[in-house]
Amino acid sequence: MREGERSIFESGAILLHLGERSETLMPLDAVERSRVIQWVFAALNSVEAASLPWTIYKFSGDTTESPGRGHLEQFLTARLQHMESVLAGCEWLVEDFSVADILMADVLRLVGRFDGLKDYPACQRYVARATARPAFRKAYDDQMAHFAAAD
Amino acid sequence: MREGERSIFESGAILLHLGERSETLMPLDAVERSRVIQWVFAALNSVEAASLPWTIYKFSGDTTESPGRGHLEQFLTARLQHMESVLAGCEWLVEDFSVADILMADVLRLVGRFDGLKDYPACQRYVARATARPAFRKAYDDQMAHFAAAD
Repeated sequence: MREGERSIFESGAILLHLGERSETLMPLDAVERSRVIQWVFAALNSVEAASLPWTIYKFSGDTTESPGRGHLEQFLTARLQHMESVLAGCEWLVEDFSVADILMADVLRLVGRFDGLKDYPACQRYVARATARPAFRKAYDDQMAHFAAAD
Repeated sequence: MREGERSIFESGAILLHLGERSETLMPLDAVERSRVIQWVFAALNSVEAASLPWTIYKFSGDTTESPGRGHLEQFLTARLQHMESVLAGCEWLVEDFSVADILMADVLRLVGRFDGLKDYPACQRYVARATARPAFRKAYDDQMAHFAAAD
């Protein structure tokens, strides 16, 4: 992301930076704020860390089984089970919608695209809630228009 | 991590929190601070995201080859090549030692333990510099004593 002379890399850092400029995306209360930051890291480092290798296999259409791959599957299952119990009890991760939900919903959305959420109804509903927001629809349409223009 | 009534999960969030209480671990200058935060995310989400599946295979002694696994290997190689060029030009990631180096050095150290740094001399030297610091030696010895006591 570029902003004047500064550029920021890493989606997590960009979201925290945007969160600092918007009360809608990051609560002012110190305790809630700290929880949002923790969920930003959890989305990236606990959930996406487990889902990324899994999606790489799915993308490659690779169905080879092996012990290492079995561990990677268990790793993702454990993280999805945890998120299922968290999301069964709340609408968004920390009170109102925040940058943590932008990230977590997008990570789970990608798992769902490869049919990985079928046993996780609360995760599915959360992704549906997040992607139904007008801001998501707009960002998604803008990105698709960008891809279409590049074709 | 527990601190009074609050508990913080996720190592990245814990390190940012500790960084906020110590000028030694997180610079006061806003631009440098932003760079430290970006490297914290990069250590977790770019480098560890690639090294973690790789270490899971190594731990399992799994040598099965497949297209998906090939992609995971390329993913790690790309990240290590990038870090090699970054670390060839600096002692620490952002000016002085910071929380970003605590994390990045530990992620690379684990790759090195599975012999994954042999083509990356600048990464090796960086890990050696970080682990030679008295604070690392103390933390490492404390952790080993903790494991020994638990036996």
